[in-house]
Amino acid sequence: MEEQEKKILCVGLVCLDIINVVDKYPEEDTDSRCLSQRWQRGGNASNSCTVLSLLGAPSAFMGALCGGPVADFILEDFQKFHIDVSLMSEHAQCVPPTSVVIANITTGSRTILHMNRNLPEVTAEDFSKVDLCQFKWIHFEGRNAEDQVKMIQQVGLHNSSLPQKQRITVSVEVEKIREPLYQLFPHGDVVFVSKDVARHFGFLSAEAALRGLYGRVRQGAVLICAWGEKGADALGPDGSVVHSDAFPPETLVDTLGAGDTFNSGVILTLSNGGGLQDALTFGCRVAGRKCGFHGYDGIAENSAN
Amino acid sequence: MEEQEKKILCVGLVCLDIINVVDKYPEEDTDSRCLSQRWQRGGNASNSCTVLSLLGAPSAFMGALCGGPVADFILEDFQKFHIDVSLMSEHAQCVPPTSVVIANITTGSRTILHMNRNLPEVTAEDFSKVDLCQFKWIHFEGRNAEDQVKMIQQVGLHNSSLPQKQRITVSVEVEKIREPLYQLFPHGDVVFVSKDVARHFGFLSAEAALRGLYGRVRQGAVLICAWGEKGADALGPDGSVVHSDAFPPETLVDTLGAGDTFNSGVILTLSNGGGLQDALTFGCRVAGRKCGFHGYDGIAENSAN
Repeated sequence: MEEQEKKILCVGLVCLDIINVVDKYPEEDTDSRCLSQRWQRGGNASNSCTVLSLLGAPSAFMGALCGGPVADFILEDFQKFHIDVSLMSEHAQCVPPTSVVIANITTGSRTILHMNRNLPEVTAEDFSKVDLCQFKWIHFEGRNAEDQVKMIQQVGLHNSSLPQKQRITVSVEVEKIREPLYQLFPHGDVVFVSKDVARHFGFLSAEAALRGLYGRVRQGAVLICAWGEKGADALGPDGSVVHSDAFPPETLVDTLGAGDTFNSGVILTLSNGGGLQDALTFGCRVAGRKCGFHGYDGIAENSAN
Repeated sequence: MEEQEKKILCVGLVCLDIINVVDKYPEEDTDSRCLSQRWQRGGNASNSCTVLSLLGAPSAFMGALCGGPVADFILEDFQKFHIDVSLMSEHAQCVPPTSVVIANITTGSRTILHMNRNLPEVTAEDFSKVDLCQFKWIHFEGRNAEDQVKMIQQVGLHNSSLPQKQRITVSVEVEKIREPLYQLFPHGDVVFVSKDVARHFGFLSAEAALRGLYGRVRQGAVLICAWGEKGADALGPDGSVVHSDAFPPETLVDTLGAGDTFNSGVILTLSNGGGLQDALTFGCRVAGRKCGFHGYDGIAENSAN
């Protein structure tokens, strides 16, 4: 019972996504009109919390919050999804990190303009103050990797005094092509590597990436790679690759955050004691469904397996 | 003395511009990083108020304000420039109209994504409640033209009871290619027509546009057309076309709002009793300077003629 109430903590970024829906990608130096525009709380870790929450798992977010008008919007949205934000730190002087997304409904493409933000990352010192007993799983969106390795070592220290079944599982996501992030590979019990990173290493399929990159993860870890409409593969310590096909919706509406949704589906299943195949299939299923509507709210209505 | 204290009122749109500075226009379906990103109060009438204020002329804005976090940002920014916002009406349920601007510093291009907003326009009824005595000039950004014609008729009625020198001058801006806006042509003492609209009518130069469109304005009115790096032309009741070259900055930094800046320079000069040639030259000069820096703040430091 006590175990069930423990939360899943996601450490990483929250930002504002301004999503501009168009039916034609704008040509340079023109004025055009969006079909619609909406504000959405974004950021990988923040999105993963949303999906976990909609799937019924209590979640918490740890990351920095900007000041100003956007902060209120973000906090209200976290609260709407009952996500624990007590570990957020507000940095009133910081400009809101905003990603501009141009979502083309004709092609399904989403073009993202990120910004060089001045928000600080969560530090190992911040993390050392966290009462880890409230969590059963901690997911790190790979960002300030050097510090994140130290945080994971703190989790390891915490785990070392506990019986196996009370230990916190650690997952890491290596999504961006950025050399320093690769030091995270050997530090997760579960490691998500993106198609982008896999391709950067020269791999042309999820399975090839898993075989080629598995040497980087620690003994006993699970390496997972989603590959868009090709589904996702996972490789665990037994050496066999597990696969799930994708579950595309009838109409592709919004692929933004599909990767974060996949991660949450996998984490939720594994954190409830499910197997790797089930986790992968559920991740693909919920991510596929998510692509059939805007945002995340529909996940709650459609989450029956 | 009393005359000098009268304000210039601009009626139209205020919105949020999110300006993303890039060194390469993003390809569709990619993730990229901006060099910088900033929020700026935007909208033609709102920008014109900013420039008037920076040039030392008391100004007021009339338009609808959204609710939510953006409203605070917009109001604070108006106040920073000492612009009278007492005629703004807040519509708390409305989503903030946001324009996404992609500013390419390599080419100087600016690509704008407007949105289908649900903010109401200022109505003739709203306008009928305004004490017009406080204004010496009212500028209408062409939007809900049918109602704006009624507002201008109210100004005419107000003027009819006053001696010539106390009358309010009316300017209108026909910027967008939209049939209903063209009914504004015969209703301004000063009419700004954009290069876009001029080209839509088949004219290939400012002078050709003025000659071709002058029949649409009322007797005695001045028609003005700016043509980017070619400068601007104006045609008044005496039938001679006045021209000013452009004054491009050494380095083109930011052309966003250059048209609104031009309009303000012209309005300010004319409202102080200056001649058409002086107004045109000052408008071109201040608009050209504006293109040499981001935003508008630099106008104050550089406004000596």
